[in-house]
Amino acid sequence: MTGAWAAMQRVFEERERQEIDEGRVARLAELAARVRELSELVILSQADEMEIAAVTREIELLTARLAAAGRGIPPSAEVGDGGVVRQLGSPVTGLLNTLAPPIEIRIGDDGTARSEFTLGLLYEGPPGFVHGGVSAMILDHLSGCAASANGTPGMTAGLDLRYRRPTPLGVPLSAEAKAVRVDGRKTFVDSRIIGPDGRATAEATAVFIMPTR
Amino acid sequence: MTGAWAAMQRVFEERERQEIDEGRVARLAELAARVRELSELVILSQADEMEIAAVTREIELLTARLAAAGRGIPPSAEVGDGGVVRQLGSPVTGLLNTLAPPIEIRIGDDGTARSEFTLGLLYEGPPGFVHGGVSAMILDHLSGCAASANGTPGMTAGLDLRYRRPTPLGVPLSAEAKAVRVDGRKTFVDSRIIGPDGRATAEATAVFIMPTR
Repeated sequence: MTGAWAAMQRVFEERERQEIDEGRVARLAELAARVRELSELVILSQADEMEIAAVTREIELLTARLAAAGRGIPPSAEVGDGGVVRQLGSPVTGLLNTLAPPIEIRIGDDGTARSEFTLGLLYEGPPGFVHGGVSAMILDHLSGCAASANGTPGMTAGLDLRYRRPTPLGVPLSAEAKAVRVDGRKTFVDSRIIGPDGRATAEATAVFIMPTR
Repeated sequence: MTGAWAAMQRVFEERERQEIDEGRVARLAELAARVRELSELVILSQADEMEIAAVTREIELLTARLAAAGRGIPPSAEVGDGGVVRQLGSPVTGLLNTLAPPIEIRIGDDGTARSEFTLGLLYEGPPGFVHGGVSAMILDHLSGCAASANGTPGMTAGLDLRYRRPTPLGVPLSAEAKAVRVDGRKTFVDSRIIGPDGRATAEATAVFIMPTR
C-alpha cells in the first residue's frame, strides 16, 4: 500500500507540473458541458434509426478531430477556493469529465467540505430519484476532501453509508463532510447529503489511513 | 418510504409498458459507446482553442438534431439473461447512459450476481486506479440485483464498504454479490470487486429493506 501511495503521489506531482492554459481548459469545460446535454438526449431522443446512425458518424468524426491533435496526460490539478486541489479529469468534480455532475467543493473555516448541486436524469436510480451509488460516490469524494483539509489525507479504508430516504433528482441538493476524529494514522470523517427540505437523505462515516513514509 | 416505493413501482411499470424497438436501442447503444470515446478525448486532447470551439458547436448541432425528434421517457427495462431487469438509462448498467461503463450483470444458479468489466480513464480516482466512489457505485448496484434475484428486493438502507487495496484501471476486473441472510424485512448482501490477481480490492455488506405493502 505504501509503495502504491508513493507512486500515486509522484504521478500527481508530474500532472501538477503540467502547464495549464486556462483559456483551453475553459473551452474544454464548455465542450464537456455540451456533451452532458447530448448524453441526456441519447437516453430520451425519439430520433429514428437513420438519424441516430447519422449522428453517430458525426460523433466519430469529432472524436477523430480531437484525437488528431494528439493526446496528453490528464490535466493537472488546479488549486481552487480554500486550497482544494481539483483534478480536471475527476469523475466527481472534474470540469472536463463528462461523467462528473461536476460538483464544486469549498472548504469552510472550520474544515467542513461543502458542495451544492443538482443531479439530472443521467444520475437516476429509482424513477425520479438519485442512484444510491451516485450518492455513495459523492460522499466518498467529499469525505476525502475533508480528510485532506484536516491535514490528514490518506487512502480510503472504509465508507459506511446509511440511506435515510430517497434523494430527489432535479432539485438543489447540498452535501457536507468534516473530519471528526484522528486516531493515530486513522482519520474519521462524517458526511451527509441534504435534500431541499433540509433533511439528510444519506449519511456516511469514512475512515482514511495515512500511509507510513 | 412506503409511498415513495409504491410510486417508483408505478413508474417502473409504466416504463416497462413502453414498446421497445430493438433496432433503435442497438443504434442508441452504439451512439452512447461513441460518446464515451469522445469523452476520453475531452480530457486528453491537445487540440487548440479554435478547434475545441468548433467541435463544441458541432456537438450543439447534434444535440439539437436529437432533440428535434422529440423527447420520450427513459426507455423501459429490458429483461436480460437470468431474468435481470436492465434499465437502459441506468448510470451503472445502462447501455444508453454514457456515464455507465456499462456493466452487464448475470445471475448464477446459486443467486450470485456477477459481472466482468474494465474501467478506463473516465473512472479514475488516484492516478492509475479506479475512483473509490465508482467501486462503491458498482457494488451498490450489484448488491441490489442480488437482493432482487433472491426474491427479496427492497430499498437500500445501508452499504458498508471496506477498501482492501487500490483497484487498477484498464485491466479486467470482476465483481460478485450474493444475498447471505434474510431477517424479517431485511436482506443482507455481501459483495466484492476482484482484481486481475484474484484478490478482492473492495468488499461491501449491503442491507435492503422490503417496504410494507
